[in-house]
Amino acid sequence: MSTPTHYTALVIGAGIAGLKACNELHANGIDSVICIESRDRIGGRLHAEQGRNGKYEVGAAWHHDTLSNGLFLEELSLPAEERADFVFDDEDATCLVDKNSGIVNVDQLDTLRHEFERWVEMKYYQSLGVKDLPYFDLCIEFCYQKRDLLTNDQLFHLPQLLRYMELWHGVDWYGLSGKFSGIEHNGRNALVFSYDKIVSRIAKPIKDKIHLNESVSLVKKLPNGGFQVQSDKGNYTCDYCIVTVPQSVLTFSCKDPEPSAKTAARIQFDPPLNSAITEALTEKSSFGSLGKVIFEFDKVKWSTKCGRFLTAHEQPQDFVETVRNSDDLHHLLSTMREKLPRSNDDSWKNPTYIVNLAKRTGIPTFVALTQQPLTEYLETLSKEEVEQFYRPVINKLLHSLDAQDYICDLQDKIPDSDSEAPVLKNIITTKWSSDPFALGAYSACKPGDDPMDLVIALSAGQGNLRFAGEHTIMDGAGCAYGAWESGKREAKYILDKVFTR
Amino acid sequence: MSTPTHYTALVIGAGIAGLKACNELHANGIDSVICIESRDRIGGRLHAEQGRNGKYEVGAAWHHDTLSNGLFLEELSLPAEERADFVFDDEDATCLVDKNSGIVNVDQLDTLRHEFERWVEMKYYQSLGVKDLPYFDLCIEFCYQKRDLLTNDQLFHLPQLLRYMELWHGVDWYGLSGKFSGIEHNGRNALVFSYDKIVSRIAKPIKDKIHLNESVSLVKKLPNGGFQVQSDKGNYTCDYCIVTVPQSVLTFSCKDPEPSAKTAARIQFDPPLNSAITEALTEKSSFGSLGKVIFEFDKVKWSTKCGRFLTAHEQPQDFVETVRNSDDLHHLLSTMREKLPRSNDDSWKNPTYIVNLAKRTGIPTFVALTQQPLTEYLETLSKEEVEQFYRPVINKLLHSLDAQDYICDLQDKIPDSDSEAPVLKNIITTKWSSDPFALGAYSACKPGDDPMDLVIALSAGQGNLRFAGEHTIMDGAGCAYGAWESGKREAKYILDKVFTR
Repeated sequence: MSTPTHYTALVIGAGIAGLKACNELHANGIDSVICIESRDRIGGRLHAEQGRNGKYEVGAAWHHDTLSNGLFLEELSLPAEERADFVFDDEDATCLVDKNSGIVNVDQLDTLRHEFERWVEMKYYQSLGVKDLPYFDLCIEFCYQKRDLLTNDQLFHLPQLLRYMELWHGVDWYGLSGKFSGIEHNGRNALVFSYDKIVSRIAKPIKDKIHLNESVSLVKKLPNGGFQVQSDKGNYTCDYCIVTVPQSVLTFSCKDPEPSAKTAARIQFDPPLNSAITEALTEKSSFGSLGKVIFEFDKVKWSTKCGRFLTAHEQPQDFVETVRNSDDLHHLLSTMREKLPRSNDDSWKNPTYIVNLAKRTGIPTFVALTQQPLTEYLETLSKEEVEQFYRPVINKLLHSLDAQDYICDLQDKIPDSDSEAPVLKNIITTKWSSDPFALGAYSACKPGDDPMDLVIALSAGQGNLRFAGEHTIMDGAGCAYGAWESGKREAKYILDKVFTR
Repeated sequence: MSTPTHYTALVIGAGIAGLKACNELHANGIDSVICIESRDRIGGRLHAEQGRNGKYEVGAAWHHDTLSNGLFLEELSLPAEERADFVFDDEDATCLVDKNSGIVNVDQLDTLRHEFERWVEMKYYQSLGVKDLPYFDLCIEFCYQKRDLLTNDQLFHLPQLLRYMELWHGVDWYGLSGKFSGIEHNGRNALVFSYDKIVSRIAKPIKDKIHLNESVSLVKKLPNGGFQVQSDKGNYTCDYCIVTVPQSVLTFSCKDPEPSAKTAARIQFDPPLNSAITEALTEKSSFGSLGKVIFEFDKVKWSTKCGRFLTAHEQPQDFVETVRNSDDLHHLLSTMREKLPRSNDDSWKNPTYIVNLAKRTGIPTFVALTQQPLTEYLETLSKEEVEQFYRPVINKLLHSLDAQDYICDLQDKIPDSDSEAPVLKNIITTKWSSDPFALGAYSACKPGDDPMDLVIALSAGQGNLRFAGEHTIMDGAGCAYGAWESGKREAKYILDKVFTR
């Protein structure tokens, strides 16, 4: 075996965390850097796909927390032509679409959503040791506790609205931690067009440091405190190693799984990752599957009065009566679990968050966000199957936007016409959950998880073995800018060490 | 002089704090209690006035923080016929009415209000020692800082909307502390009909303990740790004295003012109140003047599509241009102060919060909330003058609610008719600011104040000299339920002392 090439820092993964780390190291005088990426492209879970009507972010798509988002603020400081376009797309109230009644117009429903969030916060943060419960349980408990203070309409539609949180976390209400369901927003959210402009900007000064199509299989600690890193293409040594693979991939690295397509990206650590990291990864953290289904139409033939929607799960018709008549919360919870089983049967069984891109960009496209476990199912379907699955919801949405049922033309056989009905031309479905380099979307909390444990363990690192990515940071957890900040953080760690020793 | 009557506890003031304290003492075995009240009625700043169309709360009118409001939760536990009626009256978005454009319908305006509140929170609570500024300064600074991220419509209307906070605090944006402008809401708000039912319920078991029309002038500490209390009707001694007079009245007691109508309720403390209390009262706390103007019409001849409004101050026509072209915040602030002077000239110079009671109760009445210093001015006017002052705003509001200009008939000379136009029959204006037993509405923060100082000093008390009221507590500060909790707190203090010594 030839002598391994030596680098000061070796970065595994060319997502925004790895790229930012490399970029910072390079910009601050450390030129001996390499970034190894398994995919044939940079960007990781920031990725735009070309469709018929435009390019779509199939991964992260928003600048969140724009009051404190460092990446967003950096973008703002650039000349306009160098930054990625964005548009704030918050609406003052969530537009809920019900299978039967269409757009739901119930007094104080959004106020009640805020009250619920506050109630959850008070439940978990005014005293310690309160047991975490599935988000579902909290939604039903709140309805039960407050039923005398809610109108029938509020009681019926509130659980539908509360489920919008599933599309923040990428996990349905049975799988989502109630305790960690709340999200503090530091300012508005902006849709980004598109993140690849940002990724390219960060990668530009270091493009000759990036090795694509190369997979690391082993990170072995050396007696001198550095590492030997082995890939399918080479053998390296380094003083510092930054691991930026997704939490999902890292979790496999703690186990000794049967080799399979799912574990293809596994990295062996020698010695194994320490117990703080291993326990946090395997026992205290989870990974969600936010998926997207993109519906491309021929022309905008619907109203742009509202830019985003939550299509609601179908409520049992006796929901209100059942809650009002119950005298036992535990019994009510099991009744409701039976009445509202997890189901991939039809698109009215789960809430879907739908962005009306026509309002934001004029493009005749809807982008639907889906949650685990539905996402895993949808990502196995053909376009035709997805179309059949979503037809009822999309048509209801079109009606709510003063349009007709769409005409399906996924084979693109119908010539451009002036038909009044929207013509569905194409569907794009994400594939993150079966992608061995992603295995889902981003970090999430199931009931009983504690995200702090993992963040503390990974941001502490293991000597000069460092970790970056959206799962290694609290401020910006799960977000592109969190990953970016964590890359900065790890570069700083190395720079401090290198220049003060 | 005859031998003074002795009581275990003497309570000064029969507002909800004093009544609750007495009630708790009495209920827990201390029968030697007296409650001395200057007014000819109990309730203090909880007071309903009979109008033409119904009874109106001229003081506190809402249950706030209904997730954690102990008084509200106690009410809920009562049989329905024993509790005061209430109705949740939050709306999902504030309905802003502009002099020129009527109901303002600008995307994301409410979202921006939340962003602003978060921005203020981050400004003051992410680092210590940031200088408090008038709320006005923060509103303008936010517009200036974020102007590139705001549309012209957002930039123009946002300051109008932000001023709704004035009607929470009863102080205009020049007089209001920016740092303490934010309010955390623990749940929805409910209009109460009416608080006197609650006050009567609390007073019922102790009604023979209450002396009305009696004013305390001196509280003198005795060598045995108790007090001599002197009023215009008698002379008492007590082991414990709870002072529940408003903060405004207490503030006069620290000074040695020229006797005047305003200082009529002054109590002399011998020895004087300690320096912690005195300094907090005179240097670190203020008192607002939330006022109400109640407009009674003949019949509901307007829409009830919206239950509450903020009528907006008139923006300078070049506001957007001026903010966009400015390159110096300090200069911008002084320009805007000139363009937006404090003014009692007309009703479009200040925001007014208006409750459309028709939506809540079917009563043909608007209740307008006003802020300091406008309140002091309005409270000196005759009905006719108030009518002239508010006519433009009320008519614009009526237009926004699909109604015609009203016909003024304050003398009630026009017989009931089927005229399409609403007929204004009566106006009720509060008089709190000139009422010597109130001298305003409730505690507030001016720039540089710190409400914690006063709460700490007064809740610590001065030996067996105790304090209760909305100004002596953090959770529920300024609210009826805060006053009520503070009364409970002081009763508990005394009960603990009496039964464990």
